[in-house]
Amino acid sequence: MGRLTVPRPVTRVVVGESVEATRRPDVLIAEEPLEVRLNGAPLAVTMRTPGDDVHLAHGFLLSEGVIGSPDDVVTARYCAGSVVADETGVPQNTYNVLDVALAPGVPAPLVDPTRNFYTTSSCGVCGKASIEAIEQQTRWPVADDAVRLDPAVMVGMPEALREHQRAFDRTGGLHAAGLFTHDGQLLRSAEDVGRHNAVDKVLGWALLQGLLPARGHVLVVSGRASFELTQKTLMAGVPALVAVSAPSSLAVEMAAAAGMTLLGFVRAPRFNVYTGAERLGL
Amino acid sequence: MGRLTVPRPVTRVVVGESVEATRRPDVLIAEEPLEVRLNGAPLAVTMRTPGDDVHLAHGFLLSEGVIGSPDDVVTARYCAGSVVADETGVPQNTYNVLDVALAPGVPAPLVDPTRNFYTTSSCGVCGKASIEAIEQQTRWPVADDAVRLDPAVMVGMPEALREHQRAFDRTGGLHAAGLFTHDGQLLRSAEDVGRHNAVDKVLGWALLQGLLPARGHVLVVSGRASFELTQKTLMAGVPALVAVSAPSSLAVEMAAAAGMTLLGFVRAPRFNVYTGAERLGL
Repeated sequence: MGRLTVPRPVTRVVVGESVEATRRPDVLIAEEPLEVRLNGAPLAVTMRTPGDDVHLAHGFLLSEGVIGSPDDVVTARYCAGSVVADETGVPQNTYNVLDVALAPGVPAPLVDPTRNFYTTSSCGVCGKASIEAIEQQTRWPVADDAVRLDPAVMVGMPEALREHQRAFDRTGGLHAAGLFTHDGQLLRSAEDVGRHNAVDKVLGWALLQGLLPARGHVLVVSGRASFELTQKTLMAGVPALVAVSAPSSLAVEMAAAAGMTLLGFVRAPRFNVYTGAERLGL
Repeated sequence: MGRLTVPRPVTRVVVGESVEATRRPDVLIAEEPLEVRLNGAPLAVTMRTPGDDVHLAHGFLLSEGVIGSPDDVVTARYCAGSVVADETGVPQNTYNVLDVALAPGVPAPLVDPTRNFYTTSSCGVCGKASIEAIEQQTRWPVADDAVRLDPAVMVGMPEALREHQRAFDRTGGLHAAGLFTHDGQLLRSAEDVGRHNAVDKVLGWALLQGLLPARGHVLVVSGRASFELTQKTLMAGVPALVAVSAPSSLAVEMAAAAGMTLLGFVRAPRFNVYTGAERLGL
């Protein structure tokens, strides 16, 4: 519920010839657990920055291959029974438990899907098997998305995202993600202590807006591009991922296998193209 | 083994009045899945940078409250049956599945412990319940650790860690963690695409060295201090956590509840003290 930051005093120290310490007010990034329940049963707990929790749950279920349309979810609401007494002893909803009911005919995963992904692969666990497992789950291929991406537009996206980060400048502790049109319009952004949560919030929003598969769109993340973030991008049918920092080897391998465009170290006026350079005309 | 980085060509782009693109060799951070099996049953999969996997598994099991001593593990070895054909068709071990056998009398967790932590809390899911769950699991309290920490030593720890980061400067994509003595000696460091993995590798090493509980020691992390990293620090009996970037609200709350010292934004000559200022004489 908008608890993006939490005030708290801090002691600021400067070490010079002597040690100077001053006590002053400060602002911390809020972090709280969110439990997602599916048809009444606990599915997963993530530590997240409160806010956009319904989007977060949709994005998480999208990434896990459980849902692919707003119609796959009947209801998503905070559990009324999850309460804790406040300072005065009055029970208050924690807003930390979200009940999701799937539509009839949408199967719930039998076990924690994050584990199932890998343990069902026939050759044990390896990067190649992980990529193949994701490719089998993908609803929407992106390789045939012929969107043309302008380098001059792409290079400005991280700065545009930064300008929309409400909390970052105050705390220095949040990851951000944003969904852009190919011509640089920021449609939606989110911030979170967890980079995967920020992405889930944005892509869950897109799903609820009926924007998926997000052909012709670009996902921008404020940090590094891991396998997990690349997977989430792919599961939403987004053909391009832009990261401010480095991608991992497996992120690049998956992007290459899926025909995604992956940019890293995007810091104007420079960036690196790891895969999919043809969309940039390079 | 030691697949810390992976070579791969990249297209570097500079956007000016025209767009300049040059193809050149580059180095990526390696990312591969690691499956930890406990007494033969799959327990968890984490995406990690290969290397120090036995330490990683020990640190993970320590964080989850499963083990607290080197004697709690009988064997930890790569699964001989996890093979994949190489380019020439010869089967090669993936080194991505680690079998851990617990000593007799050490109970394995019944389910994924990361979920069990929270779902057993009586008030539903909230930050307070999460902190209480961790406190119940902690083997070694840190509040009574009277180690004296010198601000002039603390402020230099991140730079000392950075100097020991083998891969960071080449890829810009790795998280690092290091265990220091209170007087600034770096005992062990690790790098990984996942910050939690870097911490697990260092603390798992410390467990195998018989250093736990690590009273009088300091854990340094290259990024932010989340609830999860604070929990791991506490589970190893380390009384102080130093982060280069911001801590989250829940990290600060847990550090305060446990009597830990938590420093953030440690960038010489400055740092912030969030909890435990008394160990610094402030």
